[in-house]
Amino acid sequence: MSKKFVQAITAIDEDFAQWYTDVVKKAELVDYSSVKGCMIVRPYGYAIWENIQSYLDKKFKETGHENVYMPMLIPESLLQREKDHVEGFAPEVAWVTHGGNEKLAERLVVRPTSETLFCDHYSKIVQSYNDLPKKYNQWCSVVRWEKTTRPFLRTTEFLWQEGHTVHATAEEAQEETLLMLDTYAKMCEEFLAIPVIKGQKTEKEKFSGAHSTYTIESLMHDGKALQSGTSHNFGTGFAKAFDIKFADKDSEMKYAHQTSWGVTTRLIGAIIMVHGDSSGLVLPPKVAPTQVVIIPIAAHKEGVIEKANELQARLATVARVKCDTSDKTPGWKFSEYEMKGIPVRVEIGPKDIENHQAVLVRRDTREKIVVSLDELEIKVAELLEDIQRHLYEKALAKREAMTYTAKTMDELKENAQNRPGFTKAMWCMNQACEDKIKEEVGFTSRCMPFAQEEISQTCVCCGEKAKTMVYWAKAY
Amino acid sequence: MSKKFVQAITAIDEDFAQWYTDVVKKAELVDYSSVKGCMIVRPYGYAIWENIQSYLDKKFKETGHENVYMPMLIPESLLQREKDHVEGFAPEVAWVTHGGNEKLAERLVVRPTSETLFCDHYSKIVQSYNDLPKKYNQWCSVVRWEKTTRPFLRTTEFLWQEGHTVHATAEEAQEETLLMLDTYAKMCEEFLAIPVIKGQKTEKEKFSGAHSTYTIESLMHDGKALQSGTSHNFGTGFAKAFDIKFADKDSEMKYAHQTSWGVTTRLIGAIIMVHGDSSGLVLPPKVAPTQVVIIPIAAHKEGVIEKANELQARLATVARVKCDTSDKTPGWKFSEYEMKGIPVRVEIGPKDIENHQAVLVRRDTREKIVVSLDELEIKVAELLEDIQRHLYEKALAKREAMTYTAKTMDELKENAQNRPGFTKAMWCMNQACEDKIKEEVGFTSRCMPFAQEEISQTCVCCGEKAKTMVYWAKAY
Repeated sequence: MSKKFVQAITAIDEDFAQWYTDVVKKAELVDYSSVKGCMIVRPYGYAIWENIQSYLDKKFKETGHENVYMPMLIPESLLQREKDHVEGFAPEVAWVTHGGNEKLAERLVVRPTSETLFCDHYSKIVQSYNDLPKKYNQWCSVVRWEKTTRPFLRTTEFLWQEGHTVHATAEEAQEETLLMLDTYAKMCEEFLAIPVIKGQKTEKEKFSGAHSTYTIESLMHDGKALQSGTSHNFGTGFAKAFDIKFADKDSEMKYAHQTSWGVTTRLIGAIIMVHGDSSGLVLPPKVAPTQVVIIPIAAHKEGVIEKANELQARLATVARVKCDTSDKTPGWKFSEYEMKGIPVRVEIGPKDIENHQAVLVRRDTREKIVVSLDELEIKVAELLEDIQRHLYEKALAKREAMTYTAKTMDELKENAQNRPGFTKAMWCMNQACEDKIKEEVGFTSRCMPFAQEEISQTCVCCGEKAKTMVYWAKAY
Repeated sequence: MSKKFVQAITAIDEDFAQWYTDVVKKAELVDYSSVKGCMIVRPYGYAIWENIQSYLDKKFKETGHENVYMPMLIPESLLQREKDHVEGFAPEVAWVTHGGNEKLAERLVVRPTSETLFCDHYSKIVQSYNDLPKKYNQWCSVVRWEKTTRPFLRTTEFLWQEGHTVHATAEEAQEETLLMLDTYAKMCEEFLAIPVIKGQKTEKEKFSGAHSTYTIESLMHDGKALQSGTSHNFGTGFAKAFDIKFADKDSEMKYAHQTSWGVTTRLIGAIIMVHGDSSGLVLPPKVAPTQVVIIPIAAHKEGVIEKANELQARLATVARVKCDTSDKTPGWKFSEYEMKGIPVRVEIGPKDIENHQAVLVRRDTREKIVVSLDELEIKVAELLEDIQRHLYEKALAKREAMTYTAKTMDELKENAQNRPGFTKAMWCMNQACEDKIKEEVGFTSRCMPFAQEEISQTCVCCGEKAKTMVYWAKAY
């Protein structure tokens, strides 16, 4: 029965896209809704998001950020205030044209992002250097009209947080931009066990209206890159468009410097595609809603259910633990919790009770470990830490093995065709070359990493003098 | 300076509506946005909402509920599935007609509530009694096109939670409906210090599509009632419209029984209007983002700031505490934190330090209490408890003093004109009488309370035999 359940999903290396769809459905992360491109985030998927929220919200507050809530509707005229911004977003928004039974005098967009609302508000509440900095964040959903969608990765509506800050100086804004990028990077690496490349986006790939955009990029199992979080320095661009000025200490009126930064439910897609396998989801313990599941073996035998419940109570002191005493077979339960990626399974049966032991099974390596019941809490806690570390190390080793270099267009094409992953190659910073690489190779520039290397001295495309190293890849 | 700041708001008994508007603005709870009828919830207002969320979310989870996220857009055809429901909501929804640059084949509404989406989802995931109950909750915002709006009380968009559950039996659904009503009532009374009347809505006032609606009603300072939370038993009405059927233990296919229940940011309006005074907001300690503010007196004197910071560190072990060492005058700070309703102010100056004491000032009674620094933590903790209790008792006494009875239409009219508050009066359960009372008296039926009394034996309106006692009032 265990086998049958597992075989219900496509093997990961047979058809990755189908495997992904199978996992999100079978692990009960999402369901499709009756609105095209919008997903229902089911309890198990939402619980993962709540853990991410709770980790980040704490970090945001520790660094002096406050949560607010802005309206979900934006008047067309407000969206149009910043030229680049409206050009970037107008083609992909949902338009509200009627309220109740009446046609609206001015159309409204369902927020695709809230810079314009935050800026409008800041222009009213920021007058003096004493009012600065303002460091606000909002947890909400946004809507972007997408033609092709995939759960978590690209949906018409998605959940996210958007931070928006205002500062007196350019230095402070840049510091904030990088601090938040770092917060995201740490969250990915320490909490989600996903290694990331930190760097700057090219002019072409930066956010509509930003002065500069920074990104963390991660690598999925199939060798495609996923932009996993971005942090933007707006300079004074939005402040000028929205007239956000303040009287500085020297009494001069100055434009404020702004940032914005965000991560989305896309991170759940990253967790699936970095750690998952052909049996389903594999969750890093820190983000797993349930870290340990206890499964009684031969549960009808006297004392087994009682012992399982006793172990649950004991383990609740060190982990988020669940005990499944339902009447499904153990094999069925094994498969179900493997599908859901629960890090540790504890098996307890009559023989185990007799030997004063339990069997621990790791989801990541399938390794079975017999432990004395005297040491249960300590062994489980150690195992969870080890799984968290192992998943990160495995993902990092995999990314390193899938990171290549190229000095010429031929090498770049060769990598694009035969070597899924990142390619590090030099670039002249001319957009014509970036466009040509996208067209001829199929790679987009993921970022100009902070950790630069000199792969060669010339641009991989035009052969002119190189100015920066870029991570190139196919991307989600 | 203190006086000036306070005088900036209207006195509470001079113009209650203007006082309310002044408080929400001056206490920095909200700001108006550029979208008519939509408000910006500022950090201080949002922090109050976060405390309410965190209280309720814990209770929901303890009683087996799980959070999910449904799309914010609903296809017109889905909204129309349940007849009463669409009639109730269609006149007040926002319509999305275009996505990107294209006109949509089917119009979408921005959710005014999500019954239809939950039902559609439940119809897919509920097959057997083994799948029941499903107890889901969602934190989100909803949009209802309102003509006249007031911050927190009635806005085009507002934040709320909506619980939606499915059960195998009518008994279980009714139990859930009342359990959640009780959860809301406890939250109001124990956390927000707001006494409530629990009861059932009349047929006329019940939720569109519900079998029965239960409510908690509270009384504001001006004698108007505020519906503060509702819990609905849907019976099998939605299940029939959405085909939510399950194979029961006896193998028969049966329609499921459903409930829904919600509270909104309107609760913040209730806190303001129940506890506030002419100096601004008065927050019950349990829901206050900051419970204690420390204000150094003669802060330029040696050791004062250091002592204030020391007290902050000590009080952080028993309360959410803030220390304001800014260069504003103490008088200005007193007024500002009174406006924000912070329950306890701690004053510490050179003379206090010399006498090894601090001055505590209660926001609710203005009472000053000199305490030895040795007892600071214990006294502050006691004071917070006392303020919480006192605010509840005061609100309860006020509601009792403002609750009247009527046996005739003349008495009812007399109360409506001269006695702001609740009027308890008997009713024959005929809607004609309810309509007539609304038209001639200006009272709506707030609820048929669980705690019934026999005010008289005949309906206050038609004189026929009475079937129930009703709380009548003018309402927000």
